Amino acid sequence: MKNELEQNLIHYLEQSIPAHQFAEIYRYAVIPAGKLFRPKLALAAFEDAGGDIHNIPLAHAIWPFASALEIHHAYTLVHDDLPAMDDDDMRRGRPSTHKEFGQWQAILAGDGLAVASFRLLSRVNHPQNRLITSVAAHALGPKGLIQGQALDLSGEMKNDFHTLLLTHELKTARLIQLALFGGTVLASKNVNAKACKQAWRLGHAIGLSFQLLDDLGELTDEQLSKHEADVNPWLAKQSSQCCEMTVKLLTNIDSLAGKSVRHELSLYYKKTLAHLEGGKGHIESHLKDKGLLSPVMALLHSLRQ
Amino acid sequence: MKNELEQNLIHYLEQSIPAHQFAEIYRYAVIPAGKLFRPKLALAAFEDAGGDIHNIPLAHAIWPFASALEIHHAYTLVHDDLPAMDDDDMRRGRPSTHKEFGQWQAILAGDGLAVASFRLLSRVNHPQNRLITSVAAHALGPKGLIQGQALDLSGEMKNDFHTLLLTHELKTARLIQLALFGGTVLASKNVNAKACKQAWRLGHAIGLSFQLLDDLGELTDEQLSKHEADVNPWLAKQSSQCCEMTVKLLTNIDSLAGKSVRHELSLYYKKTLAHLEGGKGHIESHLKDKGLLSPVMALLHSLRQ
Repeated sequence: MKNELEQNLIHYLEQSIPAHQFAEIYRYAVIPAGKLFRPKLALAAFEDAGGDIHNIPLAHAIWPFASALEIHHAYTLVHDDLPAMDDDDMRRGRPSTHKEFGQWQAILAGDGLAVASFRLLSRVNHPQNRLITSVAAHALGPKGLIQGQALDLSGEMKNDFHTLLLTHELKTARLIQLALFGGTVLASKNVNAKACKQAWRLGHAIGLSFQLLDDLGELTDEQLSKHEADVNPWLAKQSSQCCEMTVKLLTNIDSLAGKSVRHELSLYYKKTLAHLEGGKGHIESHLKDKGLLSPVMALLHSLRQ
Repeated sequence: MKNELEQNLIHYLEQSIPAHQFAEIYRYAVIPAGKLFRPKLALAAFEDAGGDIHNIPLAHAIWPFASALEIHHAYTLVHDDLPAMDDDDMRRGRPSTHKEFGQWQAILAGDGLAVASFRLLSRVNHPQNRLITSVAAHALGPKGLIQGQALDLSGEMKNDFHTLLLTHELKTARLIQLALFGGTVLASKNVNAKACKQAWRLGHAIGLSFQLLDDLGELTDEQLSKHEADVNPWLAKQSSQCCEMTVKLLTNIDSLAGKSVRHELSLYYKKTLAHLEGGKGHIESHLKDKGLLSPVMALLHSLRQ
């Protein structure tokens, strides 16, 4: 599956970029792909909603959609890594895009990938094309993903637990919600409003728990950076709320997800659990309340199968 | 007209931004609007193609489209002004967005405006919605506007006259071509392929001549900055080609433009002519071939009314 997804991603990326050396920067930012978590979830939701990946007209719609998600995700990473933003020199084990090519190149390539993702959405050949584009632009725009980044960079996400969740919801969940929503919509010609709503709720729970587990996973390091010690919500006064919320979200996901999404998630849970188990001692040394880790790990254990 | 355009722009911008102090940055970047050249051209093309601005369903399509053009234009200016890009501290007589609010704020707000422009395009209520979104994403993406910025910032535009024109075509003309194309398409329910093609060609000529006249207008300063002296094509070996091309483009525009577009342009020519006349002595002192200015000015004079 990853192979087919990556091949399609390369195909749609090459279609979108110029025959000019600047194209190298777009390729560097997108390929080799990461976990392809968002496209995989879109395909899984498509299957769970009864879509057939070998049905030509529908498959012609799901591939550009799945590639658009990854290309949009890549743009956010390129801009997030910039010195004025998170200032990260490394990404996926190699220099981040601005480190490799320069700052104006990274700003422009990020801009280009953002627009390219909308070009791909416009190529989604499906009666609900406009609905998907409209939901995408809303979810990823100034009231969505961008506002999540603003709450993060401004430091407001540290104000209280509500703002923390709102930040994760906007910054992380929106793109995942779009993946599940789009996959569900594209599975058939007519919109099933109930299934769409459920996909949106499921994406919300996956996105939030994904981010909370990611934050927890950061604590597997023996020594935390000053920044990490400062921002990680598991170390702050909302520590026990993080635990309760993670357990609640994972339980919700388990009741909402269909077979294919459940399968994708079980692979992710397995990796997450292995990562947490490997650094269990360090996590517990950082946490004030040692009892917060075991309920999360027990639940992951039962869900990973 | 500008009043109605600006009111609509404010309306659609407010719809697009969050109820949060970050919204102030979006407002600052877009309002007060500049000349609104692109939205005005879209409306003029709409009228020339037989569109009635008071016909409710069509008017409901042209306003979000015109606002999307300006919001997209504003995003490009915010990013262009960044220190890693053109590094401009001032824009329209006040501090540029990153000077007023900071760099990460300007990067994010630019990103947000880019996505918001596609949200507005998705709200264009017209049977050809998908065609317009698709043409927009192509024209403004990695093979379009973004590549023009890449050719500019990399310095390649100085290589030869062909690359100079290509840069202006991508960086400046594409958004103007989209304005004329979209205005034409939105004027009726069915696509008139010949009118669309003509709008695209007209936009190309307007965009290129606009940029060449803008370059010429930069020479009205007595002292040129080192950067200006270095990049202005009227001072380089392509100087006479700039003159010939400008005359050719203005003549083409005159034969292609309909009544409303012609009216918009005549106002622009009038201002341009006044600006050039005011600094005529300085322009001639910078130009190697003093005879290059008069044919351009004579033509503008005949077209301006």
